[in-house]
Amino acid sequence: MPNPVAVEAMRGALVESAHRGAGAVVDADGRVAMAFGDADRPVYPRSAVKALQALPLVASGAAERLGLSDKEIALACASHSGSEDHVATARAMLAKAGYDERALECGAHWPLGEEEARALARSGRTPTALHNNCSGKHAGFICLSCAMGVDPQSYVAPDHAVQREVKASIEAMTGARLSEEMRGVDGCAIPTYAIPLVALARGFARLGTGQGLSPERRSAAERIRAAVAAHPLTVAGRGRFDTKVMSLLGPSVFTKSGAEGVFCAALPEAGLGLAVKADDGAGRAAQVMIAALIRRFGRFDEETSARFMRFVSPRLSNWNGAEVGLLRPVGPLA
Amino acid sequence: MPNPVAVEAMRGALVESAHRGAGAVVDADGRVAMAFGDADRPVYPRSAVKALQALPLVASGAAERLGLSDKEIALACASHSGSEDHVATARAMLAKAGYDERALECGAHWPLGEEEARALARSGRTPTALHNNCSGKHAGFICLSCAMGVDPQSYVAPDHAVQREVKASIEAMTGARLSEEMRGVDGCAIPTYAIPLVALARGFARLGTGQGLSPERRSAAERIRAAVAAHPLTVAGRGRFDTKVMSLLGPSVFTKSGAEGVFCAALPEAGLGLAVKADDGAGRAAQVMIAALIRRFGRFDEETSARFMRFVSPRLSNWNGAEVGLLRPVGPLA
Repeated sequence: MPNPVAVEAMRGALVESAHRGAGAVVDADGRVAMAFGDADRPVYPRSAVKALQALPLVASGAAERLGLSDKEIALACASHSGSEDHVATARAMLAKAGYDERALECGAHWPLGEEEARALARSGRTPTALHNNCSGKHAGFICLSCAMGVDPQSYVAPDHAVQREVKASIEAMTGARLSEEMRGVDGCAIPTYAIPLVALARGFARLGTGQGLSPERRSAAERIRAAVAAHPLTVAGRGRFDTKVMSLLGPSVFTKSGAEGVFCAALPEAGLGLAVKADDGAGRAAQVMIAALIRRFGRFDEETSARFMRFVSPRLSNWNGAEVGLLRPVGPLA
Repeated sequence: MPNPVAVEAMRGALVESAHRGAGAVVDADGRVAMAFGDADRPVYPRSAVKALQALPLVASGAAERLGLSDKEIALACASHSGSEDHVATARAMLAKAGYDERALECGAHWPLGEEEARALARSGRTPTALHNNCSGKHAGFICLSCAMGVDPQSYVAPDHAVQREVKASIEAMTGARLSEEMRGVDGCAIPTYAIPLVALARGFARLGTGQGLSPERRSAAERIRAAVAAHPLTVAGRGRFDTKVMSLLGPSVFTKSGAEGVFCAALPEAGLGLAVKADDGAGRAAQVMIAALIRRFGRFDEETSARFMRFVSPRLSNWNGAEVGLLRPVGPLA
């Protein structure tokens, strides 16, 4: 049975496009508060699990030993827009490990943020690996490698000590077993392992609450939560969904986008983790899906809840700024 | 019953995302050569019908009277990338009608082409309405208005003489009746009317063959086909699907993308028109769908057909240039 339609794109009176998907809301013990679609099917979480991938950096004591700041830890969890500040922060992380951008194995791309890309073009320069939206995560991998006393070269390979640590962290957090057969290569060259949404949601419930974690992981989760909450602009960038949502809702929510329509979130106060995937990989659908779940399961006052509606049902405008349609959660998310 | 999955995005051994959709292949008499999904459901064609919207400009004799070149006619059918050449061509069209960019009602946006956007940023300038991907279509509307002796002001309004002509043209070409209840506002502020895919496909069969058209429309269709075939770079831009496909296949195919996963094409030699819509609005899915149909129904030699495979099943690479997956037509398009 196909997953249900969860998001509609309206133009005038008609449904112009529709997005199917699945999602799960789970607590740290694995109790499912709500699920729709096939939430047991493994999906590549892509960048949505960067915080889980950054956990060993903190839990191992590497971040502490290298003196990484909260902002640098937030960048390790980021899909950043490639602003001057993002680039400088990644460079500083590498310097603390005794490296520079030549150690990065993520590849270069023009900044994810359109304004940031134009600013770089205006400056007459071209992008380096530091501008890659994953450069903070990769700088974190290099920091972890150094703190482990391991040569960071080929740190993107599945059998490198760093990726083995990262895999173990995701397994411990989500309770899922990550197998070779379910492994793909992410856009930034590291492995991505397919994981059921229910397990991803549980991992985020544990990240948000610390429940069921070893003391090292619990305190690392706490520091990561504090870091991303304090630096919402570092985790994504100006005008981006994660940055705007976390700026509005504060530490009561942590959200993280992933490529191909994946989104994860933690609601620490409610003790819940959330994970969704739009079947078709559309980011706009995943945003509406996660926003609809945050609104339903989050604990906000009425005013905040009302202000949050622009994420649940965003307006679509034409180039003259006139409203021509909207996105809206439907079916299981109505 | 939902539309079938028509395109899969593979990463490693897994299907990462999947796109459902519908499509139709129809001849000028309305005979359906092939259809899948709900091809009778009206969909907004968006920019996919720009050639049908440009038809009155030529059929009325306005293009002739104002001395529009083939390149300018191609730009009237374009969703262009906003290059210097695109902008200069739009400006020249307006000048022939005695107007400049202040008459454009499409709004401004940064060039659709990423390279073109960066080039504009590098120059220190900001976009005007001439950079809007629809500026050629709008310049064409202004030319038509002037040639009709009508003030072009508010030419985007549904009851302006220009939009009434455009509506009549689409109705005559597709055989569909365009109703107020099925009207939305397009990104460039003009009306877009929902039309069944079978009717869109028939309209493109007529555009491609001239069959069943009045002498004026038949000769206008011929000039438009010649114009877009001669100027594939004008219709889209460097690196874009339409430009690459028409550069490879020549006058044997005319393709036109529309927003929200719509694609139309004409195969004049086969006497067929094609129309597809990805349910979710994904452009990548619509490209694979239309490419799969072009490959099946087009008449090409083996070498061309082999070279065309990169559009039917494009490879997905990571930022290091390594292949990590691919898109592929499946189900009715396998």
